[in-house]
Amino acid sequence: MKGRGVSIIGAGMSTFGEHWDSSLRELIVDAAVKAIADAKIEGKQLQAIYGGCMASGQFSNQEHVGALIADYLGVNPLPSTRLEAACASGGVALRAGIMAIASGFYDVVAVGGVEKMTDVSTEAAATALGGAGDEEWELFQGATFPALYALMAKRHMLEYGTTEEQLAAVAVKNHANAAKNKYAQYQKEITIQDVMKSQYIASPLKLFDCSPLTDGAAAVILCESSLAKKLCEKPVNIAASSQASDTLALATRKSITSLNATVVAAKDAFTQAGLKQKDIDVAEVHDCFTIAEIIALEDMGFFPAGKAAKATEDGLTKIGGEIAVNTSGGLKGCGHPVGATGVKQAVEVTWQLRGEADGRQVKGAKVGLTHNVGGSGATAVVHIYKRGF
Amino acid sequence: MKGRGVSIIGAGMSTFGEHWDSSLRELIVDAAVKAIADAKIEGKQLQAIYGGCMASGQFSNQEHVGALIADYLGVNPLPSTRLEAACASGGVALRAGIMAIASGFYDVVAVGGVEKMTDVSTEAAATALGGAGDEEWELFQGATFPALYALMAKRHMLEYGTTEEQLAAVAVKNHANAAKNKYAQYQKEITIQDVMKSQYIASPLKLFDCSPLTDGAAAVILCESSLAKKLCEKPVNIAASSQASDTLALATRKSITSLNATVVAAKDAFTQAGLKQKDIDVAEVHDCFTIAEIIALEDMGFFPAGKAAKATEDGLTKIGGEIAVNTSGGLKGCGHPVGATGVKQAVEVTWQLRGEADGRQVKGAKVGLTHNVGGSGATAVVHIYKRGF
Repeated sequence: MKGRGVSIIGAGMSTFGEHWDSSLRELIVDAAVKAIADAKIEGKQLQAIYGGCMASGQFSNQEHVGALIADYLGVNPLPSTRLEAACASGGVALRAGIMAIASGFYDVVAVGGVEKMTDVSTEAAATALGGAGDEEWELFQGATFPALYALMAKRHMLEYGTTEEQLAAVAVKNHANAAKNKYAQYQKEITIQDVMKSQYIASPLKLFDCSPLTDGAAAVILCESSLAKKLCEKPVNIAASSQASDTLALATRKSITSLNATVVAAKDAFTQAGLKQKDIDVAEVHDCFTIAEIIALEDMGFFPAGKAAKATEDGLTKIGGEIAVNTSGGLKGCGHPVGATGVKQAVEVTWQLRGEADGRQVKGAKVGLTHNVGGSGATAVVHIYKRGF
Repeated sequence: MKGRGVSIIGAGMSTFGEHWDSSLRELIVDAAVKAIADAKIEGKQLQAIYGGCMASGQFSNQEHVGALIADYLGVNPLPSTRLEAACASGGVALRAGIMAIASGFYDVVAVGGVEKMTDVSTEAAATALGGAGDEEWELFQGATFPALYALMAKRHMLEYGTTEEQLAAVAVKNHANAAKNKYAQYQKEITIQDVMKSQYIASPLKLFDCSPLTDGAAAVILCESSLAKKLCEKPVNIAASSQASDTLALATRKSITSLNATVVAAKDAFTQAGLKQKDIDVAEVHDCFTIAEIIALEDMGFFPAGKAAKATEDGLTKIGGEIAVNTSGGLKGCGHPVGATGVKQAVEVTWQLRGEADGRQVKGAKVGLTHNVGGSGATAVVHIYKRGF
């Protein structure tokens, strides 16, 4: 990675779920205060804030979320900035925080992500989320996100023989992990049959193939690495930060069984870190729908194209398998507050590398990866993390 | 400034106005293509994009504007990221681009800003813009932005004896400048009497005290400074980049005749640049309402508190005066596409320092400043620029 070294010295999150008694601002402050306390610093030691949030304008009539965070965290006049890249808003906020330290502008910054999604009707939420795709060529024409990912799933089934039961195995694994995560929206195991019996949302995707609407927030404290060693017993170092783009509309891609933005970002991230796929002990990947996890694992080279579904069915991505994928429960089990997800992934990996992931701990985890996607893959962000102790 | 040096090597903008025949994506591509051509580079030489946009979700049902820009500019898989800080979205995007280069991550990046505001009703636009303030304590209670700035104006009049005619002098000056700018929304001079006769929007602010709803986009190409010297005959160097925050709601501030975020950001910017107010030849300041320009000039130390209104009336801020303020016409005369404004300010200063500002050129301008505000001052961003040739 370029510039000065950057480490995570604190992590925290709100519980994920339907929080009808908490507002946007309460959720992010909850997560940020926990991260600050975890870093054993005081708010006044922060020098800047970067916050990911996708659609607070449409969900809550509230833009200007950066200023909102500084205000309600009581840290004015700190510069505080919002970043947006649909469901990858958290990932791009993390990157902005990394660059702010790498550049020498700041030594200690907070990165947060938040979304408050359940204050509007499901229809209004679907419209807001539709803004992650191409409004003119998809949303306006009636396409919803389950429909777009269903097209990808159908094609994957056609090309590789992927089955609905194999997709269901992703949901079953992620619910099993979520059942061991006290922050998760669904702390409950499910079976293949539960998924298969759930209603179709957009064939072949059923209710239990889809991540839910979620309220929640997450935050990490970043610090220049040499300072981090002094401030923190267990710093987690950022080994790579990469991002890539693709067409907004699915229809204009060469392939819909692979996300080129993920391919490009992951390749660059592995190069930055000087690591290979086999070096990754724990990975949080963007499973907004079960098919998305399958495609992500193939695009990042963890399994060959067309082989990740079978690998999942065979248990290779469970905790204790070849690579532990979505130990938090993923977007499917832990929940998916769209602006928070990218930061929550970093929180989970931090806990795993510090050995603090309770009943879902991956033994001896030393290297982690996060993969955060915006829309149907128009943005992909990949980070790699290494134990700094 | 920290990190590697950063220079502007290209600048461009769309015309500002009511563009009923152009979409969000067409506007930003228009500006970006002009900036790329001005830099005499090819799109493929760019390494990343940062785009400021405030409320495309509410204006156009389109989020994920970073990916949209890369897509329609034809530069995938370049990482492309949206930043939002209400009407300071352009300013924070510029800062993100600067840090991306200062950090060593990239050598050449594009920074854009865009807003498409006239596709919705004026009421819907007012609601979207209200999201720049505190939704719970202002917008939801009925406060609009003209009302918030009217409170500031009333108090300024009470404390300092500022008059409505003096506020009108800001609008008259900025329209006179806009009349010489072919990109401006209002290329038409107005008189003090025109302003005084216009209808009250929120007393004491009248229609001609207010910036309009505008469609438009602007873009600059940033480059690491040593490389910029090789690529470009007239690079403009970034001498300072600063940002600060204040409470989202006006009611919770100690003073409403000064924006503390501007005070803090400007002080820091002058320190970074090692310059003083008298060194600035040309300044683009955030005149969303006439009172805002008066307060900005006082907060940044160009005039003592309570003296900027008289100074404006006396012509000290005209082209040829002590300091040329808002040569572009400002938000009032050139127009205010909220996400684009902060970048348009950088475009105007670039043209001024390169001696290319046509009939509004400030003779021998060597140092410029831009001041971009979000909401009623919860975010302020200040940049200082120096001729690099």
